[in-house]
Amino acid sequence: MKEIKNNDARVKKALEYGKKSIKLHKFYGGKIQVMPKCAINELQDFSLWYTPGVADVCKKIVEQKDLVFQLTNKWNAVAVVTDGTRVLGLGNIGPEAAMPVMEGKALLFKYLGGVDAYPICLNTADKEEFIKTVKILEPSFGGINLEDIEKPKCFEILERTRNELQIPVWHDDEQGTAAITLAGLLNAIKVVGKKKKDVSIVFFGVGAANVAISRILFKAGFDPKKSIFVDSKGILSKSRKDLEKSKSYKWKIALQSNYEDREGGPENAFEGMDIAICVSASGPDVVKKKWVESMASDSIIFACANPIPEIWPWEAKEAGAKIVATGRSDFPNQVNNSLGFPGIFRGALDVRAKTITDEMCITAAESLAFTAEEKGINENYIIPKMDNINAFINEAVNVGLKAMTQNIARIKLDKDELLQIVSDNIIKARNSTKELMKSGLISEKNLLN
Amino acid sequence: MKEIKNNDARVKKALEYGKKSIKLHKFYGGKIQVMPKCAINELQDFSLWYTPGVADVCKKIVEQKDLVFQLTNKWNAVAVVTDGTRVLGLGNIGPEAAMPVMEGKALLFKYLGGVDAYPICLNTADKEEFIKTVKILEPSFGGINLEDIEKPKCFEILERTRNELQIPVWHDDEQGTAAITLAGLLNAIKVVGKKKKDVSIVFFGVGAANVAISRILFKAGFDPKKSIFVDSKGILSKSRKDLEKSKSYKWKIALQSNYEDREGGPENAFEGMDIAICVSASGPDVVKKKWVESMASDSIIFACANPIPEIWPWEAKEAGAKIVATGRSDFPNQVNNSLGFPGIFRGALDVRAKTITDEMCITAAESLAFTAEEKGINENYIIPKMDNINAFINEAVNVGLKAMTQNIARIKLDKDELLQIVSDNIIKARNSTKELMKSGLISEKNLLN
Repeated sequence: MKEIKNNDARVKKALEYGKKSIKLHKFYGGKIQVMPKCAINELQDFSLWYTPGVADVCKKIVEQKDLVFQLTNKWNAVAVVTDGTRVLGLGNIGPEAAMPVMEGKALLFKYLGGVDAYPICLNTADKEEFIKTVKILEPSFGGINLEDIEKPKCFEILERTRNELQIPVWHDDEQGTAAITLAGLLNAIKVVGKKKKDVSIVFFGVGAANVAISRILFKAGFDPKKSIFVDSKGILSKSRKDLEKSKSYKWKIALQSNYEDREGGPENAFEGMDIAICVSASGPDVVKKKWVESMASDSIIFACANPIPEIWPWEAKEAGAKIVATGRSDFPNQVNNSLGFPGIFRGALDVRAKTITDEMCITAAESLAFTAEEKGINENYIIPKMDNINAFINEAVNVGLKAMTQNIARIKLDKDELLQIVSDNIIKARNSTKELMKSGLISEKNLLN
Repeated sequence: MKEIKNNDARVKKALEYGKKSIKLHKFYGGKIQVMPKCAINELQDFSLWYTPGVADVCKKIVEQKDLVFQLTNKWNAVAVVTDGTRVLGLGNIGPEAAMPVMEGKALLFKYLGGVDAYPICLNTADKEEFIKTVKILEPSFGGINLEDIEKPKCFEILERTRNELQIPVWHDDEQGTAAITLAGLLNAIKVVGKKKKDVSIVFFGVGAANVAISRILFKAGFDPKKSIFVDSKGILSKSRKDLEKSKSYKWKIALQSNYEDREGGPENAFEGMDIAICVSASGPDVVKKKWVESMASDSIIFACANPIPEIWPWEAKEAGAKIVATGRSDFPNQVNNSLGFPGIFRGALDVRAKTITDEMCITAAESLAFTAEEKGINENYIIPKMDNINAFINEAVNVGLKAMTQNIARIKLDKDELLQIVSDNIIKARNSTKELMKSGLISEKNLLN
């Protein structure tokens, strides 16, 4: 582990990535394009794709609105929507500056999940305008991926649009992070030989991510009574007058967790706990070594702040942690949202789901956990990696099946049919990119060297 | 001309087109997709296209907002926006049923102009909500194409969004139709040997299209004093009490046209006129043969109603018209909007224009007219056809040059540079489609047989 202690080298590499990234974005002039998906042999074909032929296609949809899912690309279209108020670790940088991230997300959606995602960066920071706009955009899309919206408005935006739209609405910083964390945690406790219902969890940081993670974890069978939440002012407890006064979501959490009525700072929260799920501020040294030392044996640490984990993995391990997961690709056990949304949306879209339920998230997590388990899990391998295409295919199929079981799918498919459709959609996306590169229509460049 | 008199056969063919179109839309599941435009060799490349590398790209745009045109696909992205209130000849069919048309438009944008257009069908029929939404969508797009919006709200939506956005906003049913009509008319008067400033024009139908056409024609040098407008109640004149009372745009037109103070029905309007521009109700027999008979010698008729022209071309010719243009591809002289928007936006986008002025429309028309003239114009060939790729390239270059002259371009290019960029963008779009078909990633189908 010596090489990863060399923080200077790491920072230098990150700076290089940034410089290279700017150069490449300029060279390609962005990352996504719109492309025909139907045959065009001659210009006369437009009399079928456009007027006069298209009029009868419109009339069909007038007769039966849901045919828009069959006769247009709505079934596979996802809007990646942000107002740019909380982009990566950069904060409120506005909609224009958020575009490179949203285009990147669209790229991942297509390449990993075969989903046609389109970046929509909104020129408003107003919550009501955001909600209104998403509702107005519904007809063209089969799903909405909310992204990088500041709290607390992100909660209400998600909740209301989820309730009011007839297509899945997803906030990746909530449900996405929750699904991948659950996937990793399911395998982590297997590796240390502990059980869901027995383990105690400290949630360090009470933002959008940890609120969603805890909700999904509890639904999946972890025990809320054995959990403790810590925000910047300390443990969430019934004695916290500031919470009682505010009546915010944190007060609700205080009432439903921390059955030992612990009080005080994080040092009191970590003591004796099995698991720490940290999504707080960029580290290192935000979570102290001595707190980890005070945890139960075979402790599990998820230190997921970006860009630097709350505690370096090697320090957590020195302090007795058995398994450490982070958000970074250069350490083992990356809690990587890109394992979630492409496959989860693939499954939801292929059965024309009306929403993505928490149960579908849990199914996705279990599917990812199973994919890793099949390869053989250990303390440095609890979550699949992005290069495992089957992780996405299995996840999508399981999510789609779950949607049908829950009666929120618009169509019925059997497992084999669904597997075929999912695989085709995912593989075609990668092959199309390769083909355009091979023919020089996307300039080939060796990016990393 | 016998075969085109067989109206039954024509109707039968149109019905066949419709049926075939529905089948094909279902087979392909829509017409457009989102595709990477940058190289992806391995999954590690996402550390440049997404986190961590992308953060520095965002920061660049925070420093200088206009860099979003260089570092993302905004520069080439156009939203095709409708509320579905006046789709083709189908009327107010709503946003879902409008999707096949908007996807078709996006297809034409890409295939003919290399423009990445995306269909956005709005779930609102409210004018203010429409305007607000377009403004909120601005950050992600380099242009807005408004489409199929009912009048009179389309006028105000266009005017206000054009004024308030820093990217081109275009209503194809206004500016687009105007540009192509002007192109055809410039050559038509050449063929009959008449001059712009001398000819008299009757505008039959006073909807969005003819209002825009007349504005552009007058700016291009045709004489408003020699023009007469006719709506469903007759000639627009100063004696029309209904217009005086309403103070609508039609009253303004009545004051500025018809210097002979003609009154009464269309029969009084057509008499002795050189040109009739008809964009009114689907024909035939909406414009009477005897009206055409009463026009000046070598008269020119644009009968552009859809799907059937106001008068069949052979009837107009029998009545003495020298040149007849329609909206249909199965007659000579098709006034085809697809000759306009792809090239005009190509030119505007490639110089990062802030708007598309009427002068740019006129330049586009002159360029199209010139392209046809070079091939040799005659009474059956006054406008280029879609299969002439140079029509689009020349049009785009001229529009881009005009934008730079008018100081509304964000960047400066010389003519050769612009020609290179325009050609590359247009040719790449066609080749990419071909390549995906060749490799089977878009199923090859012989559509028309």
